[in-house]
Amino acid sequence: MIAQRFDVFAALRAGGTVMINTSLAPDEAFMNLPRDAQEHLMRMHAKVYFLDANAAANELGLGNRINTFIMLNFFNLTKVISPDTAKDAAKVAIEKTYKKKGMDVVHANWAAVDKAESYLKKYTLPSSVSELAPDFIPAMTKDTPAEIAGTLGEMAAGRGDDIPVSRFKMDGSFGGGQYPVGTSKYEKRALATRVAQCDLNKCIQCGKCSMLCPHGAIRIKVMNETEMEKAKANGIIVVPMKTPELGTGLFYTLNISPADCTGCGLCMKNCPVGALSLVPMAEGIKNQKIFDKALNIPDIDKQKLNLNIPKHVELLPHYFEFPGACAGCGETPYVRLMAHLFGDKMVVANATGCSSIYGGNLPTTPWCSDVNGRGPAWSNSLFEDNAEYGLGMRIALNQRKSALRSVLFELGFENVEQIMSETDTMRQREMQNNLRVQLSGIDNTRARYAENLLDAIVDKSVWIVGGDGWAYDIGYGGVDHILHSGENVNILVLDTEGYSNTGGQQSKSTPFGASMKFAIGGKEHAKKDLGLIAMMSGAYVAQIAIGANQAQAVRAFREAEAFNGPSIILAYAPCIAHGFALQNGVEHQINLVNTGAWPLYRFNPSNIENGQNPLTLDSHVATPFPLEEFMKSETRFALARSVNPNFDKLVEQAKANNLYKTELKQHIANFTVQKNKDNGEG
Amino acid sequence: MIAQRFDVFAALRAGGTVMINTSLAPDEAFMNLPRDAQEHLMRMHAKVYFLDANAAANELGLGNRINTFIMLNFFNLTKVISPDTAKDAAKVAIEKTYKKKGMDVVHANWAAVDKAESYLKKYTLPSSVSELAPDFIPAMTKDTPAEIAGTLGEMAAGRGDDIPVSRFKMDGSFGGGQYPVGTSKYEKRALATRVAQCDLNKCIQCGKCSMLCPHGAIRIKVMNETEMEKAKANGIIVVPMKTPELGTGLFYTLNISPADCTGCGLCMKNCPVGALSLVPMAEGIKNQKIFDKALNIPDIDKQKLNLNIPKHVELLPHYFEFPGACAGCGETPYVRLMAHLFGDKMVVANATGCSSIYGGNLPTTPWCSDVNGRGPAWSNSLFEDNAEYGLGMRIALNQRKSALRSVLFELGFENVEQIMSETDTMRQREMQNNLRVQLSGIDNTRARYAENLLDAIVDKSVWIVGGDGWAYDIGYGGVDHILHSGENVNILVLDTEGYSNTGGQQSKSTPFGASMKFAIGGKEHAKKDLGLIAMMSGAYVAQIAIGANQAQAVRAFREAEAFNGPSIILAYAPCIAHGFALQNGVEHQINLVNTGAWPLYRFNPSNIENGQNPLTLDSHVATPFPLEEFMKSETRFALARSVNPNFDKLVEQAKANNLYKTELKQHIANFTVQKNKDNGEG
Repeated sequence: MIAQRFDVFAALRAGGTVMINTSLAPDEAFMNLPRDAQEHLMRMHAKVYFLDANAAANELGLGNRINTFIMLNFFNLTKVISPDTAKDAAKVAIEKTYKKKGMDVVHANWAAVDKAESYLKKYTLPSSVSELAPDFIPAMTKDTPAEIAGTLGEMAAGRGDDIPVSRFKMDGSFGGGQYPVGTSKYEKRALATRVAQCDLNKCIQCGKCSMLCPHGAIRIKVMNETEMEKAKANGIIVVPMKTPELGTGLFYTLNISPADCTGCGLCMKNCPVGALSLVPMAEGIKNQKIFDKALNIPDIDKQKLNLNIPKHVELLPHYFEFPGACAGCGETPYVRLMAHLFGDKMVVANATGCSSIYGGNLPTTPWCSDVNGRGPAWSNSLFEDNAEYGLGMRIALNQRKSALRSVLFELGFENVEQIMSETDTMRQREMQNNLRVQLSGIDNTRARYAENLLDAIVDKSVWIVGGDGWAYDIGYGGVDHILHSGENVNILVLDTEGYSNTGGQQSKSTPFGASMKFAIGGKEHAKKDLGLIAMMSGAYVAQIAIGANQAQAVRAFREAEAFNGPSIILAYAPCIAHGFALQNGVEHQINLVNTGAWPLYRFNPSNIENGQNPLTLDSHVATPFPLEEFMKSETRFALARSVNPNFDKLVEQAKANNLYKTELKQHIANFTVQKNKDNGEG
Repeated sequence: MIAQRFDVFAALRAGGTVMINTSLAPDEAFMNLPRDAQEHLMRMHAKVYFLDANAAANELGLGNRINTFIMLNFFNLTKVISPDTAKDAAKVAIEKTYKKKGMDVVHANWAAVDKAESYLKKYTLPSSVSELAPDFIPAMTKDTPAEIAGTLGEMAAGRGDDIPVSRFKMDGSFGGGQYPVGTSKYEKRALATRVAQCDLNKCIQCGKCSMLCPHGAIRIKVMNETEMEKAKANGIIVVPMKTPELGTGLFYTLNISPADCTGCGLCMKNCPVGALSLVPMAEGIKNQKIFDKALNIPDIDKQKLNLNIPKHVELLPHYFEFPGACAGCGETPYVRLMAHLFGDKMVVANATGCSSIYGGNLPTTPWCSDVNGRGPAWSNSLFEDNAEYGLGMRIALNQRKSALRSVLFELGFENVEQIMSETDTMRQREMQNNLRVQLSGIDNTRARYAENLLDAIVDKSVWIVGGDGWAYDIGYGGVDHILHSGENVNILVLDTEGYSNTGGQQSKSTPFGASMKFAIGGKEHAKKDLGLIAMMSGAYVAQIAIGANQAQAVRAFREAEAFNGPSIILAYAPCIAHGFALQNGVEHQINLVNTGAWPLYRFNPSNIENGQNPLTLDSHVATPFPLEEFMKSETRFALARSVNPNFDKLVEQAKANNLYKTELKQHIANFTVQKNKDNGEG
């Protein structure tokens, strides 16, 4: 109950009316209200009504749709207009709204209008507060640092208006518009009714569940015997490592945070050996403390890992954890993977959209740092300028490095060119440390200036992130601009094939025949082929679907980052707007790839110089999946079919376009430039 | 002399100083000043100095560069700072500015600083005005209609501030922001010192000169014997038509407007038989009246022409004439050709840039209408929204047609579907006329509403026009948006490979190694291949160079217009910013095409449906022209070579990129989709 977390009755006046929707029996529900809430209701002599709208909706064949019950009982209780007038008006509105879904739906809602009042239960307040009455559930956990709890915690609790301005003074943690990272871990939302649990005896240690988890709630640790003993002493279940590639004598544990798991079921659905299951929250939540302790097991040395292997990638520290995205979100696994791979030296420009919301969901953020204090620097800009914003970060970083080079020359350092031409991150860090020591021995302002620039030695990985509404549409002018800039920046497009966060508009990424909430007739043109377009710009281009091929996704990220120029990755992301149970997101990705409509590929311009073909098609479709079958499996197409008389024609156009684009890509993949053709001829 | 056109001495106070730069001897120059100007100078007891700065500059090896003479003599005469201080400061500035062009240039300018005063000639005013003193040359010709002369003419004369607001009342010719078309013909600027003249006996009647003329100053008329007699009586030279394809007994004339010719020499350079020459203005201007009369010879019936043949296209009425573009402009021939072909039913959205300046060069405009009153409707929008602006025009036109359909149904017309499905312009006009008669007999407000919508019957040709700064850069987001819109709009990109009108910035169209005024180091990335990118969007795409292939250009325009969806034409346009004598523009276009860097092609998506290859390469290079030779032929590359130490590397990169893009296009041109592949398989 939300009333357990927030003081929702605070505004209640004496003699006021309260309606509480809950599946609990009235007595039990009241007893579970926080002590202060119970006292306030009694002091105000509130008129309290209980309602189990979900049960009522279910009874009348309305599934989870409780809006009619809530609305009508609001009028029944408040009488701000006469209940009969409200009923008549509601019935007219219902017919208008739901007619296109069939008269059955209309009639079921009409019945709800008539019967709503019969489900209300008047409750007589007890004379004193129950002894078992709990406190309010705090917005943040007890171990939240005081500065964060006192500011972000107050915002999370809905008391942001009461925070004094002095908390935001320029030299504090919140000065100048910045705020601390890694704060999502303090918000244990415990939203799910069932949560994931892993049987480590069955587990084959493939890491797939962790890679697919949209919420960063699954954590794997590999450790030596000493750490294993400590872990076991903490109650953590640890098993021997089942493969020898990281060495012998190693142990493995995998833990899931119950309070951060949303119960989306993706992990369970996609475990190759059925080691994962969903258990009731009451049972699962008992593991929270163990999960928290397991987080403290040290991460394995990055140098030992082969980062082309997805299960090795999952052993890296997390730099993006517990985002507040929708359960089963198709975007967050890509963001988490990107942060995993480059988080210790990355800066992120994030376009407004879902990723800016779950990425900077004030008051907390899932972006976090590692035990060395390294982590992504993140900021959010607009739909219309995010690519340029990220380009600015790149240029600023280049400028700092250039300024450092100059001042080191000026100070008489002799190995400046050697320092500046180093490309290995570890050695760059060593040089940074050495220089810090050397500079501290020089007593002049230029040395102080050089110290300020020292972070520029370690090359940063610039990532520009956003959705298709940004990358295909509103911010595309900027995306194109940086694809032609020659600068070393990377773009990640989280492609949900439509505007998700703004409520459901068509984007140029929306495919033939797909409806969006504000364009239900179905798109009547082809999806823009941003990948093919980007290939013509000379950038590194990859198209990935992490559910269909994790290894290809990892490889694409690493190649994009390594390419010394602009890169763009198009990542297919299932979304609640697609209209299917997101625990089947992986199956939908595989099917879509097999239709040919979302081929997996990598286009590396570096190959051209080597006389090789730049385009590698990674999805070799053995068993094609018919496009029309895919379109039947998602409501976004089914809805358009039901309202658009030309839908069959759209399907044919979609198939023809799909065929054309598939064959064109195959044709381009067969192209190799005749490198030496012009030599000797002029 | 500008003093013959504008009252430049109006602000002179008593005893003021005047410096006049002219190649005429002082006495002659003074006698040629307008009577009012002479009187004013005498009344004010002006101190008058003459200077022939061009002769002086030439003498000191500075060519046409007169700025140093003018500036130094300003200080010598006004003494606003001490002439010695001015000289010293000028020398420092000269060294800074011209050092990169060599110390010879610096020394020549220093000499100009020292000697400037010696070229000044003090003039003693006569006691009375010369009897031969002329009037001011009017800003517009004598036959300008009073309303235009009284408003636009006053603006052209520099007296715009004195026009009363009442001239712009809503129901007048200038109401609501509109202004009359076809007004450039009233501004006979007579700028050239030498103008083109044609020897009709030599002329083979190919029409090439007319198609290439940047200023719409060459007019061809074909007529029957009766018209020929009338023309001859008016002093017009008429010769028999040399080819029989339009019928027998026809006669031909070609006239050039001396006062509109800029003497750029493109026609003379490119006449296959040397029929054109440049003659002194004094001689050429005698033909002005004959030119004006020849304009009145009726145009040949459009139905008789084969519009795939360039010389037939030149017999169409002009809808774009005498634009005030730079002499030899590479853009205007495309605009004129587009207007020629579709001007009787076109609407134009024009991005800001050169084309919006010479297109709507207030107070006059070169856009004009024909004898039936039909002509382009033109408007100018911003860099950043012009594509969307044109899309809005299309949608508004669609809406009007849809509204007309509804109201005709409502009024009980039975042939509505027949009317609405007609596609032939001539028959649409007949239907429009018939409906106008029928509607006039119906006495209700719906019929009046229908009458207001009647123009919607004739399908309009929507053209969205702009330069590369717009289409490749600032407005590209919108260009991409409409390329994916499915709407029937046409885009013309006037590609000068850089921002011309804003003074010379790099655009994404600027090629490898080219400098622009504000980026002289030379572009270090490849030119954006907008054509290849647009092909991936499913639009009709053509790349043309009118100097290299007129027939291909005409065909591309006609196919683009006929394609029922978005089209884009990329038109290569030589520009003064390229740094070569523009009378050689055709040769440069041919050479560029032969380097492979500007291939001519047409990509027609309609072919895909027919199982044909959509991409047709039209430039089959028999004799390749080396890219580095082309780069040597234009100052924009030569300047970068002189300042950029990496220039040779840029040339190699440019060649490699050229080879890659050329072969990629050839590869794509060999692609055909296997149309029926998915039938029977699903």
